[in-house]
Amino acid sequence: MFDTKPLLGEEAPSVYNTTHRRKTVYAVLKAVAVAILVVSALVYSGSSSHKPAPNKKNIIFMVTDGMGPASLSLARSFKQFRDDLPINDILALDRHLIGSSRTRSSSSLVTDSAAGATAFSCGLKSYNGAIGVDPSKNPCGTILEALKLQGYLTGLVVTTRITDATPAAFSSHVDYRFQEDLIAEQQLGEYPLGRMVDLIIGGGRCHFLPASVDGGCRADSRNLIKEYTENDIWSYVGNRQQFDELDGGKNVTLPLLGLLATSDIPYDIDRNPKQYPSLAEQVKVALTALSKATEDSDKGFFLLIEGSRIDHAGHHNDPSAQVREVLAYDEAYKEVLKFIEDSDVETVAVSTSDHETGGLVTSRQVSPSYPDYIWYPEVLLNCSHSGEFLTSKIVSFTRSNSDAKVVEDFITKEIFQNDMGIQDATAQEVKDVKENLSTPGQLLYVLNNMISLRSQTGWTTHGHSAVDVNIYGAVSNFGSIKTQLYQSAENVGLLGNHENIEIGKFMESVAGVDLSKITELLKDTKHHPSSVDEINANSFDQYHQTQ
Amino acid sequence: MFDTKPLLGEEAPSVYNTTHRRKTVYAVLKAVAVAILVVSALVYSGSSSHKPAPNKKNIIFMVTDGMGPASLSLARSFKQFRDDLPINDILALDRHLIGSSRTRSSSSLVTDSAAGATAFSCGLKSYNGAIGVDPSKNPCGTILEALKLQGYLTGLVVTTRITDATPAAFSSHVDYRFQEDLIAEQQLGEYPLGRMVDLIIGGGRCHFLPASVDGGCRADSRNLIKEYTENDIWSYVGNRQQFDELDGGKNVTLPLLGLLATSDIPYDIDRNPKQYPSLAEQVKVALTALSKATEDSDKGFFLLIEGSRIDHAGHHNDPSAQVREVLAYDEAYKEVLKFIEDSDVETVAVSTSDHETGGLVTSRQVSPSYPDYIWYPEVLLNCSHSGEFLTSKIVSFTRSNSDAKVVEDFITKEIFQNDMGIQDATAQEVKDVKENLSTPGQLLYVLNNMISLRSQTGWTTHGHSAVDVNIYGAVSNFGSIKTQLYQSAENVGLLGNHENIEIGKFMESVAGVDLSKITELLKDTKHHPSSVDEINANSFDQYHQTQ
Repeated sequence: MFDTKPLLGEEAPSVYNTTHRRKTVYAVLKAVAVAILVVSALVYSGSSSHKPAPNKKNIIFMVTDGMGPASLSLARSFKQFRDDLPINDILALDRHLIGSSRTRSSSSLVTDSAAGATAFSCGLKSYNGAIGVDPSKNPCGTILEALKLQGYLTGLVVTTRITDATPAAFSSHVDYRFQEDLIAEQQLGEYPLGRMVDLIIGGGRCHFLPASVDGGCRADSRNLIKEYTENDIWSYVGNRQQFDELDGGKNVTLPLLGLLATSDIPYDIDRNPKQYPSLAEQVKVALTALSKATEDSDKGFFLLIEGSRIDHAGHHNDPSAQVREVLAYDEAYKEVLKFIEDSDVETVAVSTSDHETGGLVTSRQVSPSYPDYIWYPEVLLNCSHSGEFLTSKIVSFTRSNSDAKVVEDFITKEIFQNDMGIQDATAQEVKDVKENLSTPGQLLYVLNNMISLRSQTGWTTHGHSAVDVNIYGAVSNFGSIKTQLYQSAENVGLLGNHENIEIGKFMESVAGVDLSKITELLKDTKHHPSSVDEINANSFDQYHQTQ
Repeated sequence: MFDTKPLLGEEAPSVYNTTHRRKTVYAVLKAVAVAILVVSALVYSGSSSHKPAPNKKNIIFMVTDGMGPASLSLARSFKQFRDDLPINDILALDRHLIGSSRTRSSSSLVTDSAAGATAFSCGLKSYNGAIGVDPSKNPCGTILEALKLQGYLTGLVVTTRITDATPAAFSSHVDYRFQEDLIAEQQLGEYPLGRMVDLIIGGGRCHFLPASVDGGCRADSRNLIKEYTENDIWSYVGNRQQFDELDGGKNVTLPLLGLLATSDIPYDIDRNPKQYPSLAEQVKVALTALSKATEDSDKGFFLLIEGSRIDHAGHHNDPSAQVREVLAYDEAYKEVLKFIEDSDVETVAVSTSDHETGGLVTSRQVSPSYPDYIWYPEVLLNCSHSGEFLTSKIVSFTRSNSDAKVVEDFITKEIFQNDMGIQDATAQEVKDVKENLSTPGQLLYVLNNMISLRSQTGWTTHGHSAVDVNIYGAVSNFGSIKTQLYQSAENVGLLGNHENIEIGKFMESVAGVDLSKITELLKDTKHHPSSVDEINANSFDQYHQTQ
């Protein structure tokens, strides 16, 4: 039983010492019990006219980039307040909490998203900035590649640039995360393994287009979208209308390249649904398309889903944006649950974070004297846009209006009162905004701090923190994966507290693949930056382009 | 299976809708499987010449007051650094993580320890400050009382005052936590149920002695220690030597009143082992004494254990003290694990927190520019005392030394360099200390901030926060409790995310008691403060006497 064995990968503590004989007897009886549970689950799972191959599996890996334990408390309380729900109305994710993950990289106790994602994709610790390479900068085989080579279909669904760290670490191999031009090339198939990805839906057209084209930012002159779609090598959707033509995933031609924004898809709080689909809509298209395309195969699919911009809201210290990002992710998670319930293919979904961002705390002392024990998530409800959006709005307004009185009126009435719901702004706050009109990065912090202060939400950094993050799991109510998932021992389960690399190893184990064999195939991958200049030109700050 | 059912107390989400018939078939097969697991566990558990009563149980409830998820990350990384351990060397607690708890009280999203403990003891939400009373200030039956009335023995082991919120909420009923004089009386048996506690080990002599006696602080003139020990109504230990005479619990006469400090037992980082036992030593005495005294009974014992001062270190924003408090608690937890492994009485231990304190974050931005991704727990190793201890040391020194040069030398060399390991103190930091010599509460913060800053550890408040806290569980490898513990459904398990009151209800369920019956017996309890003046004299700040 999982309650009496050590966590995977660790030596058994003395409390569990027992004789070998007893262990054997126990193991045999346990196997019988597990077998009965499996049989009973099969009865429970119902029947379908379509019988998939017995070992067919779908593996869905979900990342809440930058979401720590406090993000959940914040989003849950916000939702309960917004929708007037009872205290036991919790998130879909909450119902599936099974463990927690330690997040350090090989280079720091505080990981970045690149090392975090490489821990999941390759099952090994690497340095901050590493994309699918080990600490010696050697490309490492990923779970996505291993499954594709076995005959699975593969997909990536994100809300940031598809060339950003998390999706990149599953589908490319470069020394530094800033090499996004090269990442885009590899994602389309330009590396020794050829095309490994069948479906892409996210933002990030930028690194697929030359700088000479509107919305492009490649250092070379290549137009990858043109190159790859002109001959129908990939089908392409580039806006909401084209996305809608996919008919919820029923009308998809694979491989599909869906690049719905130049860089990030807007925060959910700012998102115009006529322009951009939600993450849940993206997920639904991906699940429908991939399951349809594997319908007659004896292999299923691997899908990576990322709630990418929870992290950005953390970097921005923007609680109003973050709660909506978490809730949008929870809606996407519900789509996955629905899929698992409906599918007759054995499917496992594991959801976790790479790290926490912002040092979010659901409490903040705003007085020099001992604080009251209060916290006001309801303040976030009055704020209708992210600091990112409002900063752009202010900068845009002041470009065409220089009259001091007009600008001040705009700031206090339009921004503070209308957009942020703040009726009690101080003269100092107005001054702070006016003084930062030419530094949007700082202006963003000023605005977000006004909301954080009033809701008594705390932050300790604009970077990442080292707190353990949660692990959630959902699995078909039949088949053998669930027996593995809910164990904390024997290197297969996720119950309890784990290193992030153990999550990668769990997927390897479930899929029955050996990533080291893929690593051997990757030796000739071009992964270094073109020059030292390229390295020097990309500082740590640029890990997050939205900064 | 727990993976496919909703958490306890909540409506099943639509994804789990199934027909009743299937559920029934599944339930029957599941019962068979569980039965086999139980049988196999019995084989595994070995045999003993002593056969306890078949339904005999011990219930151990453990509270890490003020410990949030980040406290674990901090203590684990600190220990790995201190002892040069590999990254997979984790805490004993880590191996038993099973879920998380939501912590709000009936009066705020941010609970205090009184409402937090009442949620556990009575299984109901009450207001901040409530000790064993419901939101209408009616005394509510506690799990300790219910078990005592069934014939169990009961104990309380803490490192703060035994009259403080957590132990008080299990063993007394008062409207406000500051009524510690009345709490002490009830703990000794002066209320309608009579004496419900058999063993007390902790600090807090203060409220058992009149103010006229050294170390006493009662508002009346009663000397409870004298009253209750003169006629051997209780046996008494009041210092380390007397504690040692208990011979590790083998030489205990129950009921035992162990009051080892006037107020709190010193932080573990400051603790002189010749003067004070560790929490693990206290726990060992309690477990040995209670199991010995119930050896021939068909009932076991209920023991509350609290790592009380993790919370104080959070209030003080003192990372050096906190890591040692968490590690001292982990040692106590190991004693519990050892007991469970060795005992032939079915025993369950549940460990959780009432709330997080301090808004601790394992990362802190110390630059105006974008931060590096770093965090230095090793700085905490150089600091050999708590801010509380060093503040007393400075205040004491300056009482007898007024020469400015001598005081500055003492601060920089003795305190900063020798005690705190800080060789690079700034002129401003020296100035800050000197300016706060007459305000120890502020001086404490200045010193602790010097360490927090250098380790890049963040805090957002001196109060509490609303983040979910972890739930840990350990249980005998035989009997029926473990089947209950590792379920998230049917109002019995603790896997997943839960309201804190569900932890109380879990204990009620395991014990097979009905607290509402105890509530009926408590109607005549005297629980109001003596006057409005008493209420007014006790502000929120005094929730924590060490402030």
